[in-house]
Amino acid sequence: MIRIAVLGVGRIGRMHAENIAAHPRATLAGVYDVIDAAAADVSARLSVPAFGSVEEVLASPEVDAILIATSTPTHADLIEKAVAAGKPMLCEKPIDLSLARVDACARRIAGTAVPIMLGFVRRFDPSHRAVRDAVRAGRIGDLHQVVITSRDPGLAPEGYLKVSGGIFRDMTIHDFDMARFVLGEEVVAVQATGSRLVDPAMMERLGDYDTVSITLTTASGKQAVITNSRQSVYGYDQRVEALGTLGMAQSENIRAHHMVLSTQAQTGEGAPLQNFFIDRYREAFAAEIGAFVDAVETGTAPEVGFEDGRQALVLAEAALRSAQVGRTVQVSEAARQSEPA
Amino acid sequence: MIRIAVLGVGRIGRMHAENIAAHPRATLAGVYDVIDAAAADVSARLSVPAFGSVEEVLASPEVDAILIATSTPTHADLIEKAVAAGKPMLCEKPIDLSLARVDACARRIAGTAVPIMLGFVRRFDPSHRAVRDAVRAGRIGDLHQVVITSRDPGLAPEGYLKVSGGIFRDMTIHDFDMARFVLGEEVVAVQATGSRLVDPAMMERLGDYDTVSITLTTASGKQAVITNSRQSVYGYDQRVEALGTLGMAQSENIRAHHMVLSTQAQTGEGAPLQNFFIDRYREAFAAEIGAFVDAVETGTAPEVGFEDGRQALVLAEAALRSAQVGRTVQVSEAARQSEPA
Amino acid sequence: MIRIAVLGVGRIGRMHAENIAAHPRATLAGVYDVIDAAAADVSARLSVPAFGSVEEVLASPEVDAILIATSTPTHADLIEKAVAAGKPMLCEKPIDLSLARVDACARRIAGTAVPIMLGFVRRFDPSHRAVRDAVRAGRIGDLHQVVITSRDPGLAPEGYLKVSGGIFRDMTIHDFDMARFVLGEEVVAVQATGSRLVDPAMMERLGDYDTVSITLTTASGKQAVITNSRQSVYGYDQRVEALGTLGMAQSENIRAHHMVLSTQAQTGEGAPLQNFFIDRYREAFAAEIGAFVDAVETGTAPEVGFEDGRQALVLAEAALRSAQVGRTVQVSEAARQSEPA
Amino acid sequence: MIRIAVLGVGRIGRMHAENIAAHPRATLAGVYDVIDAAAADVSARLSVPAFGSVEEVLASPEVDAILIATSTPTHADLIEKAVAAGKPMLCEKPIDLSLARVDACARRIAGTAVPIMLGFVRRFDPSHRAVRDAVRAGRIGDLHQVVITSRDPGLAPEGYLKVSGGIFRDMTIHDFDMARFVLGEEVVAVQATGSRLVDPAMMERLGDYDTVSITLTTASGKQAVITNSRQSVYGYDQRVEALGTLGMAQSENIRAHHMVLSTQAQTGEGAPLQNFFIDRYREAFAAEIGAFVDAVETGTAPEVGFEDGRQALVLAEAALRSAQVGRTVQVSEAARQSEPA
Repeated sequence: MIRIAVLGVGRIGRMHAENIAAHPRATLAGVYDVIDAAAADVSARLSVPAFGSVEEVLASPEVDAILIATSTPTHADLIEKAVAAGKPMLCEKPIDLSLARVDACARRIAGTAVPIMLGFVRRFDPSHRAVRDAVRAGRIGDLHQVVITSRDPGLAPEGYLKVSGGIFRDMTIHDFDMARFVLGEEVVAVQATGSRLVDPAMMERLGDYDTVSITLTTASGKQAVITNSRQSVYGYDQRVEALGTLGMAQSENIRAHHMVLSTQAQTGEGAPLQNFFIDRYREAFAAEIGAFVDAVETGTAPEVGFEDGRQALVLAEAALRSAQVGRTVQVSEAARQSEPA
Repeated sequence: MIRIAVLGVGRIGRMHAENIAAHPRATLAGVYDVIDAAAADVSARLSVPAFGSVEEVLASPEVDAILIATSTPTHADLIEKAVAAGKPMLCEKPIDLSLARVDACARRIAGTAVPIMLGFVRRFDPSHRAVRDAVRAGRIGDLHQVVITSRDPGLAPEGYLKVSGGIFRDMTIHDFDMARFVLGEEVVAVQATGSRLVDPAMMERLGDYDTVSITLTTASGKQAVITNSRQSVYGYDQRVEALGTLGMAQSENIRAHHMVLSTQAQTGEGAPLQNFFIDRYREAFAAEIGAFVDAVETGTAPEVGFEDGRQALVLAEAALRSAQVGRTVQVSEAARQSEPA
Repeated sequence: MIRIAVLGVGRIGRMHAENIAAHPRATLAGVYDVIDAAAADVSARLSVPAFGSVEEVLASPEVDAILIATSTPTHADLIEKAVAAGKPMLCEKPIDLSLARVDACARRIAGTAVPIMLGFVRRFDPSHRAVRDAVRAGRIGDLHQVVITSRDPGLAPEGYLKVSGGIFRDMTIHDFDMARFVLGEEVVAVQATGSRLVDPAMMERLGDYDTVSITLTTASGKQAVITNSRQSVYGYDQRVEALGTLGMAQSENIRAHHMVLSTQAQTGEGAPLQNFFIDRYREAFAAEIGAFVDAVETGTAPEVGFEDGRQALVLAEAALRSAQVGRTVQVSEAARQSEPA
Repeated sequence: MIRIAVLGVGRIGRMHAENIAAHPRATLAGVYDVIDAAAADVSARLSVPAFGSVEEVLASPEVDAILIATSTPTHADLIEKAVAAGKPMLCEKPIDLSLARVDACARRIAGTAVPIMLGFVRRFDPSHRAVRDAVRAGRIGDLHQVVITSRDPGLAPEGYLKVSGGIFRDMTIHDFDMARFVLGEEVVAVQATGSRLVDPAMMERLGDYDTVSITLTTASGKQAVITNSRQSVYGYDQRVEALGTLGMAQSENIRAHHMVLSTQAQTGEGAPLQNFFIDRYREAFAAEIGAFVDAVETGTAPEVGFEDGRQALVLAEAALRSAQVGRTVQVSEAARQSEPA
């Protein structure tokens, strides 16, 4: 049994804590939160210890591994500390909003053998993964185009968006990772277009976009097209499509149930899409914990790690610049951005 | 927290034990099985006590309620004992294969206030329930026809079938309950046709059918049509359809994931159907435990009870007689069958 | 070019006339209708002669074949006359509402080599036919069950229903033929249940049913289940399903177009079903003409002939009796009904 | 009856000729082809005159309108001649591969009242049009994103591609028009990425791409994303999607029939997609003729005209430049390209 402590028990941390508790080869070693009451509440509900500090968690011989679900600005620090303490970790994305900070973190943990897994949960969705597997197994032949549709049910509050790092770093980052997951080779060029359509006034204030389209190209010419919107009122729209020389694989949306209603007014109306990311990716979140437990048990590198987190951020930087300056941005150029003088 | 003990920890009992353990308002109070090793194994895996006898379970002040997942011939006895002990119970279907035994049981427990829930799990499937809810909410107007397709992935072993009570009592019984669930009124007449097509030689030996079609009619003329097969090689086929004056509601099959593959040879191939009943009705089994916990907590009658179990068996008897004699059988006639002289 | 004259240019006759005119290997030789104005109108619109009498049509050397789309009571007479005149014919179903009249007709035309095709148009629907073809090609292995859903968008006027011969002879007759088409072997037993739900008062007056369920069984035990309703407000519901040892083939409903609308209120609403039989079976009606032209050109027996029309009526008789007396009716028994004493 | 002559009776011209002949308010006035034998063949098959020259067609009082289905380099000349002759015309796309030639043509026919319709047939597809209509009717609220998937079943021969003007002018041009049709406002900026993946060697020789992704943006920030491939082995993939503030409308692929096959190996395999453009857009081609007949009868401007043909070419030029130089190209800039110095 792998004993995992959860740092940060907001909405996502709580869900992870429950998934850890339910996993047959893991136990919840305890929780920590900067807000004592939050930790106490989860501690009581799940009958596990509440730790008093990060240091206490990292020092505890009762903790085999940690899950980092704290606020974004703390991630890089916690990764460095967990590496120092030799505790394998599953860290929620992103590593940091600043590529320079990510690169500094990379230098500090260079060469570590401590397993670091990044929380790109969509890789563990059975349908998206089946697309990737179909590609890897050659069922669609040589891959040519990937098309990712990713739209949030509704705009987050301005307070959240203000510190989110912008749509590319906050939302598209999942799709950049999905594109890399399906493409199986690195992206070299990025074209992006950003618009302010859902809430133009708020986007103006934030200097952000709410509707974006991005084309990624690999060295061999494979293309990945991503369309994002901060608002899809019909539900959380999450689709992945891959075209190859032998066919196409598509991961379709998930519905709350499979009842279909046909009346004079509406013929063949499906059930609503799963609307909330925790519902939509319920199986994926559970499978993610399973993959982390596997990595910790075997001491092997998790299938999605620090460098994946860094690459997704590099693509976000490149996309942002492309949208701002109106030209194709080379990834090498975006990656250079953070290099020390 | 409702403390529930599980009697019988074969395949289904184990699954129930895990669902109880995972339920936020229930705990697994322990397990019992006539085979000590089976109880010991589950006891060890789930860290709960193994009881030495049914009597011990029923006498324990640490047990608030029981789940009966033992072999069919023990169900009626256990129901009577649990009623005597005042322990609410969730009993797997059927109550018994003999309507006379069911009626004897009914007389012995007559007037009890102890909650008895019957394990007609399909009522808790989100899609089937959405059909029933659409009917009750008037979304399809006045109900006219119900069509239930229910086909098992493959024939069970002869040893199992020999003691199953035959296809109507073993397999169609779920569909009889589903028909009553959706119809919302009692069936008065039954027409059935049985064939031996999947394994004619085995069916001949057993005096049973493997392919049946049944039409049920209520007093107001509503019809429910059930088609069953012991073998659908494309997966576990479970569909429910309701036609009314304002429309139609359909509960469709569930797939393992939502990836669709299109190639030159096969265009738009969906993922396989969920094939195993524990996978197919995973959400339903969990929801069933939830409904039982609700009933025990509130002391109210479970939404599916002893009389539902009895009525489904009455319909099975009627269908068997109809298939054998080639005429419509009145339910009143089938029900009389078990009355004492 | 096969020159075909159309007898009867009501709604269906007109459509046939247009399909003949559009067929590359057929021409419309002219039209006849008992109502002169109707014939004159179609004659003018399609620039073809209007014949003055049936006799004139049958005597004309400019007419190679005829299409009979007159009222039902005239069909058997016209078949006999066309046989006498040596003109191949495509006759709309049914041959007659009376099995005795059909049998008399059969005796009179016994041994004729003149091609007689019956207008069971649904056999020519590409999707239904693909089900039949999948069955014949062994793609689903040995056939076990056929399930036919057939529901009319709305109740026809009482005047029409009064002379229709009742739901089994008028509506289910298409499904009896479809069942025979897919089953590929003769039905030996019929069970039927009839209800009055759509318009109980009118059905009471007519002594008819508006909602019926029928189970057909072949000598080898294959089952075909038909559900009919005179009213499906969500559109013309026409589905055929076949289950076999290797799989299932399903013919699904046709929609007016393939646009799907998803909003907050309704997720994934498809376009309306094709609602009117002439729209729904447009391709089938055109293919039917093609099959008739082929038969006339080659002088071979049409793939659906007089005996198919007779068998469907025998099944209708059997179903009616079964619904009335509440027992399984043997087809041999129904067929005997019309035999001369 | 509008009497229409067809110029050019290759594959597309013949189909148009048949559609004209079948239209209730049009007749085929005759055909012309630079290859006498081709004209003679169609003339004989459809029993219409074969004209000896374009001049003869344009001078004929028996010809009310013309359909131009000759080779691309002749289109602009024929448009100018038909305008001079006062004959309304339906001209296959493109007007010309050179924007300068198109602009010269525009100047020569400036101010004409002769109806000129451009053959952007996809506008008449019932499903695509239903998307556009849903957008115009406000059913999805304010439009934000359009996503067009357009993939050809297989690569055309090199000889054809050599004179096609390249993928943007030959293939994407239909999607540029579809984007404008759905967007309902003009595109101001174009980003494109081109790859050589289907046949890199041939594409290298041609200086062309076979796999492209394009993002179009309007002045208000609406986005249209187009993905094209010269090869989709699973069939002709033609989908249009529109996202707005109130929902999403999607036009899905069309299948040859609606039979679905489920076996142990493949669950829920749909029928093949319509593979050939003449099959896929059969209804659209017929509706296009209808729209042209309407325009000629009423003397009103066709719903898709010369300027639509010109705008689509401007977008093709912009996309080509964007793909070549790796930056966003402003449409004003592309349009200027053809202006006289």
